[in-house]
Amino acid sequence: MVLVSPRNPLNMGAAARAMANFGLSRLKVVAPFAPNWREAESAVGAPEILTEATVTETLADAVRDCSLVAGTGTLTFRKPEQRVVRLPDLPALVDDELKSGGRFAIVFGSEKHGLTREDLSLCHVLVEIPTDAGQPSMNLGQAVAVCLYELATHISPSVEGQPEKESSRALIDAVSHVASSGSLELLAGVVEHVMEAANYSPEGMREANRHDMRLLLRRLAPKEEDVRRILGLFRRILWRLNR
Amino acid sequence: MVLVSPRNPLNMGAAARAMANFGLSRLKVVAPFAPNWREAESAVGAPEILTEATVTETLADAVRDCSLVAGTGTLTFRKPEQRVVRLPDLPALVDDELKSGGRFAIVFGSEKHGLTREDLSLCHVLVEIPTDAGQPSMNLGQAVAVCLYELATHISPSVEGQPEKESSRALIDAVSHVASSGSLELLAGVVEHVMEAANYSPEGMREANRHDMRLLLRRLAPKEEDVRRILGLFRRILWRLNR
Repeated sequence: MVLVSPRNPLNMGAAARAMANFGLSRLKVVAPFAPNWREAESAVGAPEILTEATVTETLADAVRDCSLVAGTGTLTFRKPEQRVVRLPDLPALVDDELKSGGRFAIVFGSEKHGLTREDLSLCHVLVEIPTDAGQPSMNLGQAVAVCLYELATHISPSVEGQPEKESSRALIDAVSHVASSGSLELLAGVVEHVMEAANYSPEGMREANRHDMRLLLRRLAPKEEDVRRILGLFRRILWRLNR
Repeated sequence: MVLVSPRNPLNMGAAARAMANFGLSRLKVVAPFAPNWREAESAVGAPEILTEATVTETLADAVRDCSLVAGTGTLTFRKPEQRVVRLPDLPALVDDELKSGGRFAIVFGSEKHGLTREDLSLCHVLVEIPTDAGQPSMNLGQAVAVCLYELATHISPSVEGQPEKESSRALIDAVSHVASSGSLELLAGVVEHVMEAANYSPEGMREANRHDMRLLLRRLAPKEEDVRRILGLFRRILWRLNR
């Protein structure tokens, strides 16, 4: 990832933070405003990504080894000269490039002016983040986060060629099973007894209530543990009502 | 969109900016730290979204009219109690909800601690931004930007539901709609009274029971008509128990 002439140390920190969030590590910074760059780099708790960043004088130097360079920016006031790619379509492009052995860089301009026309001339494509016409221009740190999120989520190996780690999170949902029909019937039976004990509805409605309760329980699709819990409550209620 | 107890005025501004970038306008802020909130709100050039935000005391108030509430946060140190949805899978869920006439809210916790366990008990799903294990925790403004980008890019109508169809929606709601957070809270309250009246659990368990009941109701996702029916039964039970 390349930042061209960033001004605000907070933004530099935010950009580095987003890189860490999405598993990137190689940052190049082009012609930063020196005092602010030193401030960002030497801040307490500055991300490693910042302290290890490469500083170059020109964007041409920074992207010298890249075969696909994507510039970012707001398109409203500028007629783009190169191919415009919507951000959601970028991952496919990058994927192809990486698979064919190429190297990819995404480039962000300075907070105030974005990428200059000359910067853009070094870009193969111009990435458009689909923002609202009323407020098209994004904060630098947020634009970086959005772009890296899109890339990290849709490119199988990481943008820099390192395989992503499998998240074990998906397993958690699978632990508890939806209750069996038998459990639901048991619960429906106890609820029915409670209805009777509480004189909930007239005799003539019992059949309809039983039917509705069955449908309701199946629509709610509780898990076995839910059924056990609800059963416990209704048994308690029944016991109190019948005392 | 809901911000719970945000601290940093810069982050509040950044969150509002991201909303404007992605075409949202309805912001609710829960129990903000007052001096900082005033600062954010009255800053020169504060986005309209901030100055027009609704402030509520509790998250329950903020999401009362919502049928799908998505909490955000880092999952690393906490075993999630509700369904976890990866951010890329969220738009489909939200789309379904909006199409069936529901209302959706996405909730962000404070910078320091994220959403509390109680906040999370008001959420139907927990959204996981697929970040790197080495630096899973995102800056608030960036997390907001990433989430809203994903939603705005993949949901055709407004993320905030269809306020223009307010009146005709009430009819649809009555027939088949998933119960609002407010209805679930009402039901949870009556169930709690029944538990007390039935001496269901020792005093010391009440807090935990209330928490579990909230989670359970959101997992079951009953419709408004279901809630009315269950409420009727529990009110009847309560009346009998207290006689």
